[in-house]
Amino acid sequence: MKKMKRIGILTSGGDASGMNAAVRSIARSAISAGLEAYGINYGFAGLVAGNIRRLESKDMDGIIDRGGTILYSARFPEFAEEKTQLKGIEQLKKFGIDALVVIGGDGSYHGAERLTQHGFNSIGVPGTIDNDIPGTDFTVGFDTAVNVALDALDRINDTATSHQRTFVVEVMGRGAGDIALWAGIGADADAIVIPEREYDVKEIAEHLKRNYENGKEHGLIVLAEGVMSAADFKEQLDQYGDFDSRAITLGHVQRGGRPTAKDRVLASMFGDYAVRLLLEGKGGLAIGIRDNKLVATDIIDTLENHKHITDVSLLDLNDRLRF
Amino acid sequence: MKKMKRIGILTSGGDASGMNAAVRSIARSAISAGLEAYGINYGFAGLVAGNIRRLESKDMDGIIDRGGTILYSARFPEFAEEKTQLKGIEQLKKFGIDALVVIGGDGSYHGAERLTQHGFNSIGVPGTIDNDIPGTDFTVGFDTAVNVALDALDRINDTATSHQRTFVVEVMGRGAGDIALWAGIGADADAIVIPEREYDVKEIAEHLKRNYENGKEHGLIVLAEGVMSAADFKEQLDQYGDFDSRAITLGHVQRGGRPTAKDRVLASMFGDYAVRLLLEGKGGLAIGIRDNKLVATDIIDTLENHKHITDVSLLDLNDRLRF
Amino acid sequence: MKKMKRIGILTSGGDASGMNAAVRSIARSAISAGLEAYGINYGFAGLVAGNIRRLESKDMDGIIDRGGTILYSARFPEFAEEKTQLKGIEQLKKFGIDALVVIGGDGSYHGAERLTQHGFNSIGVPGTIDNDIPGTDFTVGFDTAVNVALDALDRINDTATSHQRTFVVEVMGRGAGDIALWAGIGADADAIVIPEREYDVKEIAEHLKRNYENGKEHGLIVLAEGVMSAADFKEQLDQYGDFDSRAITLGHVQRGGRPTAKDRVLASMFGDYAVRLLLEGKGGLAIGIRDNKLVATDIIDTLENHKHITDVSLLDLNDRLRF
Amino acid sequence: MKKMKRIGILTSGGDASGMNAAVRSIARSAISAGLEAYGINYGFAGLVAGNIRRLESKDMDGIIDRGGTILYSARFPEFAEEKTQLKGIEQLKKFGIDALVVIGGDGSYHGAERLTQHGFNSIGVPGTIDNDIPGTDFTVGFDTAVNVALDALDRINDTATSHQRTFVVEVMGRGAGDIALWAGIGADADAIVIPEREYDVKEIAEHLKRNYENGKEHGLIVLAEGVMSAADFKEQLDQYGDFDSRAITLGHVQRGGRPTAKDRVLASMFGDYAVRLLLEGKGGLAIGIRDNKLVATDIIDTLENHKHITDVSLLDLNDRLRF
Repeated sequence: MKKMKRIGILTSGGDASGMNAAVRSIARSAISAGLEAYGINYGFAGLVAGNIRRLESKDMDGIIDRGGTILYSARFPEFAEEKTQLKGIEQLKKFGIDALVVIGGDGSYHGAERLTQHGFNSIGVPGTIDNDIPGTDFTVGFDTAVNVALDALDRINDTATSHQRTFVVEVMGRGAGDIALWAGIGADADAIVIPEREYDVKEIAEHLKRNYENGKEHGLIVLAEGVMSAADFKEQLDQYGDFDSRAITLGHVQRGGRPTAKDRVLASMFGDYAVRLLLEGKGGLAIGIRDNKLVATDIIDTLENHKHITDVSLLDLNDRLRF
Repeated sequence: MKKMKRIGILTSGGDASGMNAAVRSIARSAISAGLEAYGINYGFAGLVAGNIRRLESKDMDGIIDRGGTILYSARFPEFAEEKTQLKGIEQLKKFGIDALVVIGGDGSYHGAERLTQHGFNSIGVPGTIDNDIPGTDFTVGFDTAVNVALDALDRINDTATSHQRTFVVEVMGRGAGDIALWAGIGADADAIVIPEREYDVKEIAEHLKRNYENGKEHGLIVLAEGVMSAADFKEQLDQYGDFDSRAITLGHVQRGGRPTAKDRVLASMFGDYAVRLLLEGKGGLAIGIRDNKLVATDIIDTLENHKHITDVSLLDLNDRLRF
Repeated sequence: MKKMKRIGILTSGGDASGMNAAVRSIARSAISAGLEAYGINYGFAGLVAGNIRRLESKDMDGIIDRGGTILYSARFPEFAEEKTQLKGIEQLKKFGIDALVVIGGDGSYHGAERLTQHGFNSIGVPGTIDNDIPGTDFTVGFDTAVNVALDALDRINDTATSHQRTFVVEVMGRGAGDIALWAGIGADADAIVIPEREYDVKEIAEHLKRNYENGKEHGLIVLAEGVMSAADFKEQLDQYGDFDSRAITLGHVQRGGRPTAKDRVLASMFGDYAVRLLLEGKGGLAIGIRDNKLVATDIIDTLENHKHITDVSLLDLNDRLRF
Repeated sequence: MKKMKRIGILTSGGDASGMNAAVRSIARSAISAGLEAYGINYGFAGLVAGNIRRLESKDMDGIIDRGGTILYSARFPEFAEEKTQLKGIEQLKKFGIDALVVIGGDGSYHGAERLTQHGFNSIGVPGTIDNDIPGTDFTVGFDTAVNVALDALDRINDTATSHQRTFVVEVMGRGAGDIALWAGIGADADAIVIPEREYDVKEIAEHLKRNYENGKEHGLIVLAEGVMSAADFKEQLDQYGDFDSRAITLGHVQRGGRPTAKDRVLASMFGDYAVRLLLEGKGGLAIGIRDNKLVATDIIDTLENHKHITDVSLLDLNDRLRF
């Protein structure tokens, strides 16, 4: 096998806090090993356009604490087409890049998978707030998003308590309930509603009524966006009682901001692991952490035969711990 | 004049961070002066219902850093009626309370004004995130709300920059543009849209277009809720160009949470000043800070003849400082 | 075996954020299962003194987001004596308490172990910022402490960069380097110095010199308190070069404050798991999370035959990722 | 008078959060008015060395939320000498710079004053966490520092309450007690000790004793660094009672970090005001805010005949509001 010399890095899909920590980790780990690192701007769109620049160690200074991605991201549905993929590989070869590390979510992984299938060595690092990537227990950005949501829920609890209100708060997560579960448990939610399990509005309403009667005159329902909108859920809830309810959608604030320690450390471990695997001549892999250990699985198999499993036992835990 | 012995305290209207600091200040300042402090739960509703309790200095321990209000708040439109007001005064007399300090916004002030007109000595302390109370440059809760909004805007800027998007972010403020102005200047907004001045969507769109051409490929428009909804503004904006725009409503998260230093100090000064005025035999006043000095103005005159003036010169400042 | 009816809860040792979340979890999980929960104030001192109170579900409202411990803690070296331990068991029996859950660190675990050896069913829940408890990968309070330290390090990096200085920052951890490792990696430290591995000041100084020459004119050394004081380390460093160095000890600020999502969820899982094990008739256990799974190990064996292993591979990771 | 074309900007002295917001404001306001902006790196040292670069509007993107200073700062005692000052003016002329805006504290102002006395138009913008600059009620960086200190004090209160301890916490402020006063009032301190007023350790100890007897079994003393060290104060306190006391020095963490809304808005107003005054042909001024209004005073007169007055009435306020 040809000796590895240059590693390309791109971020793709929705931004997640810790992406910069992952970029830094890949670049610095590569440079430490005597390789060169190249940053590809604007995700797969920039790849195809050849928007590529050398990354020096100094460029990685002062970015680990920044949200967003210094490599930018962009929507690029055209990358589903084979000829566009081949054009991307052409650009990589033009820059002498031997392997590519893609940081992103589901769609980004599919891009990396395609390149691998065309014979270009690509590795996926899971970076999304939704935690919905197969092959890993946790993604980079999830912990920050949960903490941002929790911070908002703590504030909302202040108002709920002061005004004896019930808030229905919609959090992100696309099709997954992970953010809702973690933020909901952390915020002492009365109910957490996620796509992975049936919900019963009437039961929730009765639980709230009992609470109001027993001295907890405020309520919090944390709703995953994959179920329905906060406004729709509130409408359903209101049919079973008057809780002076309010619907809130937290929205994009969950994406950005200073990454937490866990997201920075996870991103650092993932990025470095990807580089070390490439140095061992491996590739076509999806990086992850499973049972608290770094793992790398075949990216094609991972995407085609596995899916993220949300830990729904957390719902039962919440039912035991709520008021 | 009869010697003052007992001071009542209530919070009313939307909760604002720093209300607890104000409650503590009034209670502790009163107790320091040899008076007794009584807390009235659930605002004017609790007043009329006689939901009143003695506050000891120890009860004020550990509350200065808490959002919301430990005295709770409640909607109570019935307090517009004279007979309900008189019923409230009856309760105050039953508990031997000589004067009342009301912490809240516009509506709360009107309640205090009514009681004063019926001869019951009442003082208003401005507590609202909206900063829209006459008789003061700043209200308790405004600084916290601005900082919470700014924290969200900083996060949104991360995503906007990463994705070359323009965000339209609706912040609170009822009819006033103060939160929008402060948070917008702090977040390097491209435009701030407030009820106090006409806006020109086309001009804003052209400014954004120039930015995208000149290398700032992201945008931020901070919109005061008093103008229109973020979704409506986005619709208008989209007619003048494609900025990959997104509409966000920050909502209730702006209300609660740990109060800032400024809100705690302001609340401490206001509450203590109210007590000292009462000790001097004064009353029927609205407390405030003007030109960095504590002031107390006649509450009836203040409400009837004055209104809050938003500093629209900040809009011009922002126009000079934006990209 | 006699049917379990009442569970006692105490917090002991240094406070850690998330202890209240653990108290809530144990109490609420017990109440959900039809048991009664009793809180013991002031740790083992309060146990022996019989400072014990019934905890209702409502008492657990509004505490999950609070640092410190609502059950208080206290030093109580006298609990090393057998007769004091037996006195504690006497009090537990007097209150009809069938089992005790102790939240705390090393010393607290030893107390629980003693009680178990005397035949009183006790379970340990790991609660300490130091992460130094055997039988678990993570303790409640560690994630919050790391994030607080990281927040401080981010600020310090601002000043270091502005002034071209090198900061030596001492973080907590008693004999363990875990906080230093996680916070150091998260803050892009130039060196992390921990008790688990030899350090070489000269090598660190030479690394810093190279950095200053190569364009990174600031430095950050994160030092675990178990090695030496920041002032002493700075003195050693200054012998090898002039880095305009400053020594900082972060100190007690790392203990308190709003717990992170991870600490709240971990505390919730631990507390509930302890109760469910007690319901199954088990006891004398140390709760933990290992390889991302809840585990319970014999508390006597855990304390006598195992010790916490810090993941020193993180040091090597940092060496690959630093400038 | 010659038409103004180029404005130079430098930051000097200890860094303060909001300095970047001030740099941005000066540069953007100048550019908006058709002028050119030049940044001088490393304070007066860089001025003399000619380390000067053109600042474009785009360079000011993404810096308003960053602590520290993108223009760097440096100690440079040599600037006290006239020949060094004249060398600085030579460099400014070489770059065609017509006026200089200096952001910093006391020492920086003296540099600006010297240049003005040599006939080079200079304006001072107050940027220091200490709030100790004459000619203004508030400096840029003060509000952020107070909030950072307050955040730490809130955490410390958690531990103090949990362990029934008294903490002596030393905050920054050089010779001024402003940070101690604001943070102390905000944190419900039992005593605030500042250089501007005599303190009585015995009285403080007796107050704490009364508290412990009356049910507040924890204490907080906020100490300005200008009085003595926390360790020394603790030693004095311990002579009058056993409060299980601990001494903490918050240190450099108070300097950096994301600036608050107030510091960003204040910096924006100051910087823009400086530029507008220069455009009107004015100079040799110190910018400030007094009684909530922007002011500009003669920089020579301000430095020679005025000094910062700390509002010691806040001490009396705290005495009325403490437990």
